[in-house]
Amino acid sequence: MATSGKVIRCRAAVAWAVGKPLSLEEVEVAPPKAREVRVKIVATGICRTDDHVLEGSFLDIDFPVIPGHEGAGIVESIGEGVTSVKPGDKVILFGLPQCGECCFCKNPDSNYCLKSHLSVSQCLLPDKTSRFTCRGKQIHHFLWISTFAEYTVVPEFTLAKIDAAAPLDKVCLLACGFSTGYGAAINTAKVKPGSTCAVFGLGGVGLSVVMGCKAAGASRIIAVDVNKEKFARAKELGATECISPGDFQKPVQEVLTEMTGYGVDYSFEVIGTADTMVAALASCNMNTGVCVVVGEAPSGSVVPIDPLLFLSGRTYKGTLLGGWRMRDSIPKLVSSYLEKKFNSDLLITHTLPIAKINEGFELLRAS
Amino acid sequence: MATSGKVIRCRAAVAWAVGKPLSLEEVEVAPPKAREVRVKIVATGICRTDDHVLEGSFLDIDFPVIPGHEGAGIVESIGEGVTSVKPGDKVILFGLPQCGECCFCKNPDSNYCLKSHLSVSQCLLPDKTSRFTCRGKQIHHFLWISTFAEYTVVPEFTLAKIDAAAPLDKVCLLACGFSTGYGAAINTAKVKPGSTCAVFGLGGVGLSVVMGCKAAGASRIIAVDVNKEKFARAKELGATECISPGDFQKPVQEVLTEMTGYGVDYSFEVIGTADTMVAALASCNMNTGVCVVVGEAPSGSVVPIDPLLFLSGRTYKGTLLGGWRMRDSIPKLVSSYLEKKFNSDLLITHTLPIAKINEGFELLRAS
Repeated sequence: MATSGKVIRCRAAVAWAVGKPLSLEEVEVAPPKAREVRVKIVATGICRTDDHVLEGSFLDIDFPVIPGHEGAGIVESIGEGVTSVKPGDKVILFGLPQCGECCFCKNPDSNYCLKSHLSVSQCLLPDKTSRFTCRGKQIHHFLWISTFAEYTVVPEFTLAKIDAAAPLDKVCLLACGFSTGYGAAINTAKVKPGSTCAVFGLGGVGLSVVMGCKAAGASRIIAVDVNKEKFARAKELGATECISPGDFQKPVQEVLTEMTGYGVDYSFEVIGTADTMVAALASCNMNTGVCVVVGEAPSGSVVPIDPLLFLSGRTYKGTLLGGWRMRDSIPKLVSSYLEKKFNSDLLITHTLPIAKINEGFELLRAS
Repeated sequence: MATSGKVIRCRAAVAWAVGKPLSLEEVEVAPPKAREVRVKIVATGICRTDDHVLEGSFLDIDFPVIPGHEGAGIVESIGEGVTSVKPGDKVILFGLPQCGECCFCKNPDSNYCLKSHLSVSQCLLPDKTSRFTCRGKQIHHFLWISTFAEYTVVPEFTLAKIDAAAPLDKVCLLACGFSTGYGAAINTAKVKPGSTCAVFGLGGVGLSVVMGCKAAGASRIIAVDVNKEKFARAKELGATECISPGDFQKPVQEVLTEMTGYGVDYSFEVIGTADTMVAALASCNMNTGVCVVVGEAPSGSVVPIDPLLFLSGRTYKGTLLGGWRMRDSIPKLVSSYLEKKFNSDLLITHTLPIAKINEGFELLRAS
């Protein structure tokens, strides 16, 4: 049964044009249509991808837009046909849908969905209209979830109900950053107990990879970053050693190979540059070594790979949101959080009110 | 118990220097030392890698040398400590050892061996001496097995005893070419029943990939080659469709993506050029797609990869001799051959006596 539908007026952070800071505005949020859900956002993370939106790095974003894609909240109302949540339910919203109907969703090995932005535009809801207006103008959605708003309307298949005991200001990170890194180790690399790992890049996603390697029982987790200030946190989360490439005269892949005999079992690139993508591949052992590319390189980048690196058997893999099928997995990840199987709280460096969202972006850029 | 040891005089094809044709010579073959086996070679394949040796493409080959690495024969005598074979046993010799003692051999997921030529020189036997002389000069071994000789001496861990019923002139292909392609599909890609596959390059190894895909139960096997004369054989071995990139205005990866909806489940590059390595990766589907690099590119090649191809989850893998642990696997592969689980005989285009070995190379280059 659909709940009542009035327009809600609330605050949201609007990106009016490329290169401008976000503008805190009063917006109107229309009620959900069929198979949509209106959610009161309680907390959202700020991800570097949001900053790339503001910079205009993505060609498939329509402005003006309300960014944000790492949010948690409470269902306010539901449209016709919504069955998985009801008003009052705690939910996490995610940018990678799981429609359950496409050929990828029906493949149990896949976590892609043909309703994702890589296949269709997510700048308007599936019926090609927006639920947001501001100053008389239509505002676009971002990845269908636009979490930089106090209320947002999303398709049912972009959210999942979670345990009512979950602290929303903490578990919102599970929508993207944490799950991407943690899943890259658990699902994509399938790190084995007793194995050796190297993690290139110690931002929030890289630290989540470290947590995933630890949870999987890796015996050595070598954290790599040029910024040594990140080492203490990495060690707290499970890194057994930390190295800075600047401390060596030789390429870091040679350093890692010498440290481990023949290279690590699993390497993870969580930076997004061609150089580190090559170094990470060369750092894993020649035969059973697996390198997972987690970092996102700028459009037009080229990674120059020596094909001899593959001759002896190496594996190079990408990961899409850590390989999780989001609607299926998010409730389980929240349960694991509540059971203290990992401590993603340590990734939270600052908590700010929505009015200070541009300050949040400054902190992100300075990190 | 070691068998008696006399020097054997026999014929062998010697490469005296880079760029020269093979020279059929009378050579002396010393008896096997401890943990070595002297084998009467009955049949050997000619592999493109042997041609690369003659061209001087490899820096780690010492001349003069007796090439050949795809051989089958009969044990003539054994050195001290040899326990796995005795005189009269039929054996296959392989260029990828399995010493059983190194950290890679002890890892059940690995088929690499630290005694392989990628780690140590195989131009002399493990004791750093040669068993071959010709016209008073020491002749080097190739990959420790030098099958272009009527008799050769090899370390015990580079051969395996096979079923006495096996026809050696047929199963010699299992030493390298057939096993590499067949295993790339079976072991490395782990092709699933009902899946779609694309195979780039229809030489002997590419055709063996086709056989592997068929044995694994693939529902579509799309064979790709610029030479349409190879299509009939590919279809005979299991290809369901054959395409020539020259017949299309658009890149072959787009053709394959359109043919299959979202790209194949598994693609195999069996040519060894940077262009086809990129095309093969782009031909497999964005999420669960797996591309296996089987072809060997010339030294110094660079494959320019768009990292966005990985963002949605693709996997790019190398394969080393099809992922087989050779001493363990060769006897089983021969049994499968005898049970007619695959018909590698169809790969045999010509059979020549050793005196016509240069003619064999001409046929290889013309194919």
